[in-house]
Order: sequence, then structure tokens, then C-alpha cells
Amino acid sequence: MVKIDPDRLMADLKQLRSFGATGPGVVRLSLSPVDLAAREWLAGRMSDAGLDARIDGIGTVFGRSRNPGPALLIGSHTDTQPTGGWLDGAMGVIYGLEIARALGEHDATRNLAVDVASWIDEEGTFSGLLGSRSFVGEEVDSAIRDAANRQGERLEDVLAAAGLAGRPRAQFEPGRQLAYLEPHIEQGGRLEAIGKAIGVVTTIVGMRELRLRFTGQRNHAGTTPMAIRRDAGAALVAFIATLNDAFKQLADADTVWTVGRIDLEPGSMSVVPGTADMYLQFRDANPARLQAMESALAELVRDFNARNAVSVELQTVDEPIDPVSMDATLAEHIARAAEAVAPGQWLRMPSGAAHDAQVIARCMPACMMFVPSIGGVSHDFIEDTAEQHIVLGCQVAASAAASMLLELAAKAA
Amino acid sequence: MVKIDPDRLMADLKQLRSFGATGPGVVRLSLSPVDLAAREWLAGRMSDAGLDARIDGIGTVFGRSRNPGPALLIGSHTDTQPTGGWLDGAMGVIYGLEIARALGEHDATRNLAVDVASWIDEEGTFSGLLGSRSFVGEEVDSAIRDAANRQGERLEDVLAAAGLAGRPRAQFEPGRQLAYLEPHIEQGGRLEAIGKAIGVVTTIVGMRELRLRFTGQRNHAGTTPMAIRRDAGAALVAFIATLNDAFKQLADADTVWTVGRIDLEPGSMSVVPGTADMYLQFRDANPARLQAMESALAELVRDFNARNAVSVELQTVDEPIDPVSMDATLAEHIARAAEAVAPGQWLRMPSGAAHDAQVIARCMPACMMFVPSIGGVSHDFIEDTAEQHIVLGCQVAASAAASMLLELAAKAA
Repeated sequence: MVKIDPDRLMADLKQLRSFGATGPGVVRLSLSPVDLAAREWLAGRMSDAGLDARIDGIGTVFGRSRNPGPALLIGSHTDTQPTGGWLDGAMGVIYGLEIARALGEHDATRNLAVDVASWIDEEGTFSGLLGSRSFVGEEVDSAIRDAANRQGERLEDVLAAAGLAGRPRAQFEPGRQLAYLEPHIEQGGRLEAIGKAIGVVTTIVGMRELRLRFTGQRNHAGTTPMAIRRDAGAALVAFIATLNDAFKQLADADTVWTVGRIDLEPGSMSVVPGTADMYLQFRDANPARLQAMESALAELVRDFNARNAVSVELQTVDEPIDPVSMDATLAEHIARAAEAVAPGQWLRMPSGAAHDAQVIARCMPACMMFVPSIGGVSHDFIEDTAEQHIVLGCQVAASAAASMLLELAAKAA
Repeated sequence: MVKIDPDRLMADLKQLRSFGATGPGVVRLSLSPVDLAAREWLAGRMSDAGLDARIDGIGTVFGRSRNPGPALLIGSHTDTQPTGGWLDGAMGVIYGLEIARALGEHDATRNLAVDVASWIDEEGTFSGLLGSRSFVGEEVDSAIRDAANRQGERLEDVLAAAGLAGRPRAQFEPGRQLAYLEPHIEQGGRLEAIGKAIGVVTTIVGMRELRLRFTGQRNHAGTTPMAIRRDAGAALVAFIATLNDAFKQLADADTVWTVGRIDLEPGSMSVVPGTADMYLQFRDANPARLQAMESALAELVRDFNARNAVSVELQTVDEPIDPVSMDATLAEHIARAAEAVAPGQWLRMPSGAAHDAQVIARCMPACMMFVPSIGGVSHDFIEDTAEQHIVLGCQVAASAAASMLLELAAKAA
């Protein structure tokens, strides 16, 4: 069996962590100086591993195996959230690097091709999932032209300043790359709660993001009797109760919905709010359930408008994202590898978070595997995973990668 | 009977409106250049009316009658909200000016003393109700030293720049000023709704302002199952429902409570809120009811903390304000004057808004009267009152003032 080198794996992960290290966390926003330095370092480590490595025209680091295909593409991202953890994305990329090295060190796997990618801007500093979208052939020129970060820096200018503008962009090579594997931290607390070490991802959930704007009448909070108020904030609060009831009827244990933001206008203690906005996100692995939730919400809105002096309007904040199924055959390779390396310590589960894998799945079979997040925490400086789980996860991924590639090679032969 | 001059009244009101006019509204923040210009103009009109007028050491314009007491003090304020209306405060001050003039034009009232005040900063650009608080002898030196406006300008510096620092401040003269009258727009829709022209104020309601902070656990909105969430925002929404139930049990038709602001942290669609703040204000004319509401709220908080994984903490935002009863004898003078001028077109009502009268009532009997606000709107550019109601209100106030002063003179004799 292919054996990874735990010390080499951890050393590279810790080296990558040093780019943007902030306390226990990491601040490495896409294309920031520290992120560019990390990309240079990563390309160097890929070259050291025998890959043909380059940073492409939008910042994706792509390490192409010198072996002919069929190739397994292993990828994730090395950019972070504004207050990010050290493993979110980074771990999957370094797994890819380590697996390319480990396979190259064993006779049985020496001739297999592992390509490794660190997709640019998964976290959306400029435009979320940009690198993987570009790779699969999505039109991203307009995003490159129009996107800017929170500081108002335009993506186009940042790429030019970094000397990347005009370079070719990494593109999917049909016939070569036949499968995609993205190892990642779970970012939730399910594995930890039931004491498992590996999650084999079945589906990346779909998502809806909506704003509900309630419009009433702004008024003096002292002189306006309750009976004649048209309080947009009170209407919003009442609406959430009916929404919760309706969604509970439709949900299963994995369905989630969140009101992450509420704005009452003008936001003064002495003023009855005239308008009130709530931002609602809901996610599920089942497209039919997402559709049913959307229909239920639309019906609640119609019903509310028919009965209330405050009106409510539903607006889409972001394009709907449909659930993406992971390839069952690839998932089975991961499951078998997990059972071999860590018997009984794995389970199948959906991914509640978005990942580049949902984009790459448009052009080739894709799969994901998770390792546990301590306390279920991510997108936070204190995000962490036990070292034994990091090492175990890489060994599972390496074994699964070898088994996928051997099957692909057998089919090609 | 004393007759006011409607044309002179309206001309002065419109002249005052020109200072800071912004569309139909007025922006005349305390001690801004345009407010200082308006104060100079007002002091000049008071002098024209035969009053000894001056701008005091914090900006209050005080016009003292040259007649000996007993005096009736008529006052309100000429500063506005950031987006203010033209009558809120201004109307009562110009009523005082017109009443001083009108009484001086009739033999029966010529020797009566009407002092007129425009109290500085009722609206709290620097420190709410500052002028009336200074007048009644409250310690305001620390407020003068520490207060700043939203632009960060310090009150002390602004007073020095205006040449007011060091001037004496208007002070209550016991034995002279024996009653206070504050005419004002209603700022609510009750008079309009029932077709009345004059409100005789019984009480200025008391108020509580509190913040409730809910503390749960911030988490990823995609990967955290509903069953294990500690969503501070959802807890806040659920709490408001129980609060509404409890307060409805205690309320009468005049009780009001308002959640004017809600902040979910971090305020992102993809993050389960870890903390959530709601700002709650409630007002009532009955001190026992305010106390009961306060107790009910404290009990809800205890109960919530005992039952929930999200905790809630109650904090006072501002000092409690107790209800202030208006003087019944003075109110009766207004009621008789209203019945004489506009039979059947008046009613007794509480004031849901705060006014300088609640401060002045600490040192002398005080009363208030209202005229209707069109659409119940105030603290807004479109605030307005029908001209017939403005004129009628001034006539009622003048008749009431004469009758109060004649009674005070008779008692003194």
C-alpha cells in the first residue's frame, strides 16, 4: 500500500500556515501579497515533487504530472476568509502534493498521474470559486473585469500588478483528467459528535439566498398607539415564526435554514421601523425539498400580504445553487480506503458547505472526503483538526487515489 | 377676550422656518450656524415684542417680561432633529412670542407677565433637554464638558466659538414664574383620527430603554445541523413573541412598546449568529404599569435563561424616566379655553413623547396642549399641521394664558 510521509505532510502544512499566520489563524486573502508569496512557495514545492508547476493567469497554482493520463486531479484552495483557519482549503492542496510525492515513491504507483491544483479565490475575496469556474470553461472574463475586493481594489489591476495578467489560464484537459478528489475539513461538528474520523461525501447541498423586505410606516415610538402601527420590524419577527413552522414541516435532519442578518430602519429606539430586511439562506441535498421550501416561502409571502397592513417583498440575493451529487464510484473508493485504514471510523454524509468540487463536477466525476473539525468550528482563527486525523485523512486519500488511478488505468488499457 | 394676530403668528413661524429650510422640512441642529442665526433673530423678535431678551450661556433664548410677576412662562424649543419638521418645538416658542404681544395689546392683560423661552437642545444633538435641565438647577456642567455631537464637535468648544461661553444661564426665579405652558404639535395621529383640534395633556408618559443581548454560538450556516445550533438571532425572535404576549396582558390602549433596532453578529447570510442584540423601549403614563412591565420582562429573562442553550442579559440603555403629571388646575384653564374657542373639539390625552415640560414640572406647575399632526407624522421633513389648527391652537393658548395669569394675579393680590 502507498504510504504517505506524515512528517513531510505536517511540515508543508505548517510552512504554508506561516504565510499570513495571525495568532492560531491565518489571514491570506486571495492575491494579497502574502497569498502571492504562498503561491510562489507552493509552486516551488510542486516542482520539487516533480510536477510541472505554474501560477496561471488568475492565480490558480497548477501542478501537472509529467506522467501521461489518465490523471486524477486533486485540489482545493489556499486562500482564506478574512479571519480564516489554517486548514480550510490548505489541507486538501497539501494532501494533493503529498499524494503525488507518495505515489512517485512506490513502484506500483510511480507511473500514475496526479495533477494538483490550488484554485484561486474559493472564498470569494473577489469572486467565489473563480479558479475552478475558469478551469471548467465558465465565462469568467466579465467577473475578472468587474470584480473588486472590500478595499475597492479591482481584480484586473491586482492581477496586472502581480504580473499574472496575460498568462494562460489552467484548463480542463478532456481525456487526461478523468476524476477529481477534494479532501477538506468538515467545517461542522458531526464527525466529532459521533466519534468518526472520515466523512465520505455523498452530495454538496444546494442553496437559496433571499432577502425579504417588509414595508410598513415609520412613526414616533411614543405617540403612535399599538393599534394603528404598521411596524415593519414586528411584522418581520412574526413572519419568521410562521416560516419556522412551515420549514419544520418540510425538513429532514440535514435541512438547514438561517436568518443571518436583520436590518430595521431607521434603527432607533424611539422610532417604529418603517422598513425591515431579513436575509434568509436555506440549504438541502435534495433538489425537490429545496423547491418545496421555495414554494412554501412564496405562499407565506402571498398569504402575509393578503392579511397584513405591512407588505413583504421577496428578492433573490444570489443565484440559486442546486445540489451536486458526488460520483458514487469514486466515493466507494474512498469508503474502501477508509475501511482499510480506519475500520468502522467513517460514514457517508452530505457537505453543508460549498466547495470547488461542485464546479469541477460539471466536467468530470468528482468526490470529496472530510476529516473532523474540532468543535465544528471553521472560518475562525481557532479552526483546527487533531494531527492524528490530518495524517489519517491523508493516508485514506492516498490509498483512495491509488485505487482510483489503478482502476482508471485498467479501464484505459 | 384676548385676540391673537393670525397673520403675525404665521409670518413669524414662516420666517423661523427659513432658517435651515430643506424642502418642506428644516435642518436646524442645536448650535449649528443656522440655529445660532435663528436664535439671534428670535431674540430680536422678543425685543420687538417688549421683552428683555438674551441668549444665555448654553444657547437658550429667554425673553423676560418687563412686568412684575406672577409670571407665566411659555416655552418649547427651536432646535430640530437631523431631518426635522418646521413646527416641532418652533410652534410653541412662536405661540409664546405671539401671546406676549397679544396680551400687551389688551387693557385687561397689558400688565400681566409672560416670559418666553426657547430651551436649547431639546432634541439632544449634544445632550437632550439641556436648556430646561439647566433652568431648573440640574447639574449640567459635566454634560457641557463631556457632550459632543455626531460629528465629534464638543459642546464646550461650540459654545466658545459662538461667543456664548461664560454668559450667565437662565435660571428659574421662584416667586416670579408660577406656571409653565408648553404648546406643541401632537406628533401622533390621535387628534386627527377622531377629528379633534386640541389635546389637553394629562401626563407625559414614563419610559424604559433596555438592551437585551443574546449569546449563543457562532457557526457555519451550512454545516451546523439545526438540532445542535445555539442561534442567538433565532432566540431573539422567539423571545420577542413571549414578550409581546406578556406585555399585551399588562397594557392598556395607551401603552406602547417598540423594538427599534436588532443587530445580529456577524450579520452574514452564511453564519449562524453568535450574538444578537435587541433594543426595547416601552412607555406608559402609569408608574405602576411601567413597574409591572419591568418585572414581567425580568421574569421572562430568568425563565428564558433557565430553559435555553442561548443566554440573554438585560442592560439599561438609559436612565428610567418616570411619568410626569401635568398640573390639573392649569389643564382645566386650557380645557375651558378650548371649549370656549372650539366647543367640543378637544380632548384630554397623555403625551407619548418627551418634552421640556417634564423637566420644568420639577420646579413649578406645568401644562401642555397639542394641535393635530397631519398623518401623525413628526421627526420628518413632511411633518405639518393645518394652518387653521395652528391659528386655533394659538388662540386657545392665549385665552388659557390670560385666564391662568388673571387667577395667579388674583391669588397674589
